[in-house]
Amino acid sequence: MKYASPAPSAVSLADPVLAPRVEANRAATIPACLRHFEKEHCIDALKLKWKKGDKWWPHIFWDSDVAKVVEGMARELSRRPDPALAKELDRVAKLVVSAQQPDGYLNTHFTLVEPEKRWTNLHDWHELYCAGHLMEAAVAHFEATGERFFLDAMRRYADLIAKTFGRGRGQRRGYPGHEEIELALCRLAQATGERKYLDLAAYFVDERGRKPNYYVEKEGWEEWRLPYLQAHLPPREQREPVGHAVRWAYLCCGMADVAAATGDAGLLEACRAMWKNATERRMLVTGGIGTARDGEAFEREYKLDNLTAYAESCAAIGLALFSRRMHAITGEGRYLDVLERALYNGIPSGASLSGDRFFYQNPLASDADSPYARERQEWFYCSCCPTNFARFFPQAAQLCWALAPGEVRLCIPAASELRLGNGLCIQVKGRYPYDGRIAIRFVGSSVSSAASAPRNPSAFSLSLRIPGWCAKFSLAVNGRHVAAKPRDGFVSLKRAWKPGDAIVLDLAMPVQVLRANDAVAADAGRIALQRGPLVYALESVDNGPALHRLSIPAKQDFRLVPAKGLPRGTVAIAGTAFETTRPGDALYSEAAPRTRRRRFVAIPYALWQNRGPAEMQVWTREA
Amino acid sequence: MKYASPAPSAVSLADPVLAPRVEANRAATIPACLRHFEKEHCIDALKLKWKKGDKWWPHIFWDSDVAKVVEGMARELSRRPDPALAKELDRVAKLVVSAQQPDGYLNTHFTLVEPEKRWTNLHDWHELYCAGHLMEAAVAHFEATGERFFLDAMRRYADLIAKTFGRGRGQRRGYPGHEEIELALCRLAQATGERKYLDLAAYFVDERGRKPNYYVEKEGWEEWRLPYLQAHLPPREQREPVGHAVRWAYLCCGMADVAAATGDAGLLEACRAMWKNATERRMLVTGGIGTARDGEAFEREYKLDNLTAYAESCAAIGLALFSRRMHAITGEGRYLDVLERALYNGIPSGASLSGDRFFYQNPLASDADSPYARERQEWFYCSCCPTNFARFFPQAAQLCWALAPGEVRLCIPAASELRLGNGLCIQVKGRYPYDGRIAIRFVGSSVSSAASAPRNPSAFSLSLRIPGWCAKFSLAVNGRHVAAKPRDGFVSLKRAWKPGDAIVLDLAMPVQVLRANDAVAADAGRIALQRGPLVYALESVDNGPALHRLSIPAKQDFRLVPAKGLPRGTVAIAGTAFETTRPGDALYSEAAPRTRRRRFVAIPYALWQNRGPAEMQVWTREA
Repeated sequence: MKYASPAPSAVSLADPVLAPRVEANRAATIPACLRHFEKEHCIDALKLKWKKGDKWWPHIFWDSDVAKVVEGMARELSRRPDPALAKELDRVAKLVVSAQQPDGYLNTHFTLVEPEKRWTNLHDWHELYCAGHLMEAAVAHFEATGERFFLDAMRRYADLIAKTFGRGRGQRRGYPGHEEIELALCRLAQATGERKYLDLAAYFVDERGRKPNYYVEKEGWEEWRLPYLQAHLPPREQREPVGHAVRWAYLCCGMADVAAATGDAGLLEACRAMWKNATERRMLVTGGIGTARDGEAFEREYKLDNLTAYAESCAAIGLALFSRRMHAITGEGRYLDVLERALYNGIPSGASLSGDRFFYQNPLASDADSPYARERQEWFYCSCCPTNFARFFPQAAQLCWALAPGEVRLCIPAASELRLGNGLCIQVKGRYPYDGRIAIRFVGSSVSSAASAPRNPSAFSLSLRIPGWCAKFSLAVNGRHVAAKPRDGFVSLKRAWKPGDAIVLDLAMPVQVLRANDAVAADAGRIALQRGPLVYALESVDNGPALHRLSIPAKQDFRLVPAKGLPRGTVAIAGTAFETTRPGDALYSEAAPRTRRRRFVAIPYALWQNRGPAEMQVWTREA
Repeated sequence: MKYASPAPSAVSLADPVLAPRVEANRAATIPACLRHFEKEHCIDALKLKWKKGDKWWPHIFWDSDVAKVVEGMARELSRRPDPALAKELDRVAKLVVSAQQPDGYLNTHFTLVEPEKRWTNLHDWHELYCAGHLMEAAVAHFEATGERFFLDAMRRYADLIAKTFGRGRGQRRGYPGHEEIELALCRLAQATGERKYLDLAAYFVDERGRKPNYYVEKEGWEEWRLPYLQAHLPPREQREPVGHAVRWAYLCCGMADVAAATGDAGLLEACRAMWKNATERRMLVTGGIGTARDGEAFEREYKLDNLTAYAESCAAIGLALFSRRMHAITGEGRYLDVLERALYNGIPSGASLSGDRFFYQNPLASDADSPYARERQEWFYCSCCPTNFARFFPQAAQLCWALAPGEVRLCIPAASELRLGNGLCIQVKGRYPYDGRIAIRFVGSSVSSAASAPRNPSAFSLSLRIPGWCAKFSLAVNGRHVAAKPRDGFVSLKRAWKPGDAIVLDLAMPVQVLRANDAVAADAGRIALQRGPLVYALESVDNGPALHRLSIPAKQDFRLVPAKGLPRGTVAIAGTAFETTRPGDALYSEAAPRTRRRRFVAIPYALWQNRGPAEMQVWTREA
């Protein structure tokens, strides 16, 4: 990768949006997940306690859910010391490892319930997916604690998998039905310095979708179902996203990781093409992808229905992780535009501000008949989303920065701090994303745990991202205006930086009236409001019920007002709307409608349903 | 019933819409169904040919599908003699009867596959539903042929059921999970004069939903699922439609039949209330009901999404049959308004003009992503809809008239003829529903097979329905204007009618711009066009793709034009629309939209997708 992330301990957040999410995740999400694991027998499964006749049985996903929370705990611990958390992490990590079999295998379902079926149904049973999450957890655990027991255990598991799968004699030419292990093996290779894990990742990516098709030939799967698993074509030949959105996003992460590690230009080209098609023709304005409820999957281009949009929380996280990698490889700012869109909208919408309730689906409109998208739930039968938050939010501060030799990049200008290895610390202040004025200050730092230093500690480029949504900005260094034109989404300031240096970046942040491409049927005649990176939504809490009766004139002076009942500082948009009613009780009639002028208030989409059940809509009819 | 239907042989149709449907049903639908029965082993099932290991097995619905086509053949034969059809009917009816068991039981699935499970899963397995359709078929067969073998066989089956179910000692207190047998038993009671079948129907209606609940207590069914089967409350206590729409409609037919036969005012009141709620708050403008794809079921009031509206063909037929009964009992014209809406829109949309392709779902908009509503199919795994057309269309002419002592009612003023027993024949001419001018003429008749005569052959009331959609009409008898105010939807002309008498009824039939109740979110800001009883739709065949880009001004001079590629005489509506596009490829942007004026053409909704796959929409944005 051209750009690296700073170490977790080298960054911290102090902004009004991400920092509270990280804290809620630490204080509420992770403990809630652990409680549910106890209650739902996931812990019993790891203790190998299940026996025939029990009323519960270890689900084929469970190991991955626990692994994701272990990863989250480790990432959280990497941010700052926490003895209680460290103890709990140690306990759970040891519990996970205790379920490992003598040959290195670790899967509670296939150890307890169907041992004879190990590796026999790769297309559907998530064995390799669970293994991937376990490996990610092990790497995070090692990075957080320096202890090797979990990492070593997962190396043994990876070795078993490498022995089992491949093109050699006696090996199976299979690959995972739900991708994840590809990216995990790349992380394992990085953490251990072992090339063989990267080779295994490359094998899984390259073997996928080859003819004769493994799933069809060896597992009796149906040809027409292959696109659902991205197994209809070798990934490097794919140019459009298809099938299950989370699978696709994780595959792309793995492809990008392999491409970055091996310099495989063909893989990277496939990543570029798929990312482009996914984000330019199949992405909701919130960064949500996979709009089809049937299969949590991609639909055809421009099919972006609002009320029924599935947009799984995990898929938005997957798109963010993929976009982050694409920026790290290419340095192009457009990848961060999508990362930022998901980070501030389609991802956080999946979790309550309190951190203990979750949406699995993130549609762009909700009425009284959206059972799963009306109120966030405490848990799900398949709880991949809550556990994904547990590991995603601790990374938020790291997402804001990127490092390369001789360059520090401010990717997301949220209030934060980056402690460099050279004794310098970069402080970002402001109320982004609610305000476009970003004050950046260099100060001396005494923190020992610091990010890798720029090659020349005194002279390096500080690159500031100018977001894609921003049409106008101004920049001043030490009080003097600097004329700069963004290149690939960044302006670069190369100086010998020293404590006391101060930069002010002012991103003009007017209310923007968005219209969808005219190929999007669902949004015809409708507008959405965006300000900065935040997509806004109307909620019945502020506007009363029957939001569909409202229409909004695009040309008007929108006002910024405090949002009621949401965290102090949350900026709402107020303006003029028209409310149209039709007289009479008749279901259908020729009666002429009546229209009255009234006020509307829109809040950031990500914050809806934090004040009770409510109707919500992002796209409102244009008056 | 206050109003009876005329005998099938006493009426005939000569209109441009219904008559061709009846003919296509005779010539194409019925033969197609019989072919599919052969191919799909339904016939083999009746021959009791299935054995373990066969690749097919008799489905729990199959007997009902065959029964419905037998009923259709019989009804068709009742319309006019047809020796070939008579022979085929005899063959299939005998085949059906041949599957009957010595004790009277007739169900191929439970005879062949799971004989030990007879009557054990009433809530889900359709045994009594199939029995009901067999009884309806038997009555129609008897009425068409005068032969008793099928009727007698079904009497024995009904006797077995009466012995099995009831409140007596040793009887089961069960009732059907899918209603149908209630109305069928009422028909059996009428045809045989046997009160006991009516009593059994009343038992099934009254036992339903009682506490303790049979399904919960005896079959382990879940309480929360009872509304799906209308078994959460005794039907007479129900006031709103819930659950599976076809089940609900058939239940209501049975309730109305029992109420009519017994004078049970409580049951009738429940029918009234449920009909009112269903049609005034949960019915699509086409007469479709049951908008939820999940469960083919009713949704909450005013939840009438267009693209996803399920609106099963069978449910529209069920609503028509229920509405017809409610008119027959009460004489109120509003029931015929709904019958007519379904008859000309949501029912015929389910069948191609050619009669051999069918929609199971009848949404009010269709795009490239509506797999089942994009092209009519030849057959379905569950083929209740094609087989329902087979028995529904032969009744079309009978639906146009209603008879009571001293009164003849013209319910649907389609071109038709009613031959009365007194030697009089009433001829209706015109191009209804494409034209509102109805010419009615009394002529002498020599046809022997005639409807029951008015009590006084020379003096009786001819009542003409003034449809609910009609705001203005004029009436002339023998060239002289008659001032008349409709009462309960009818104007009545009492005369001593004689050959040569002529009436002209002129129903003003402008293009009407409909708006939905403002509680309907899906139709906010949208209009639909209706003319006479016909709901119109835009199809991409006439308007090009991307119908969502169009908006239509409500106030304009709509023009009537010939529809292209549809049967001669089909009236289309043309007018001015605006097409809005947004410049640029971006998925979301601030670019201002551009609008251009253009022409649009709308065709009758029922005729969409008769010219190839197409986009379609009923509700268009108002300009």
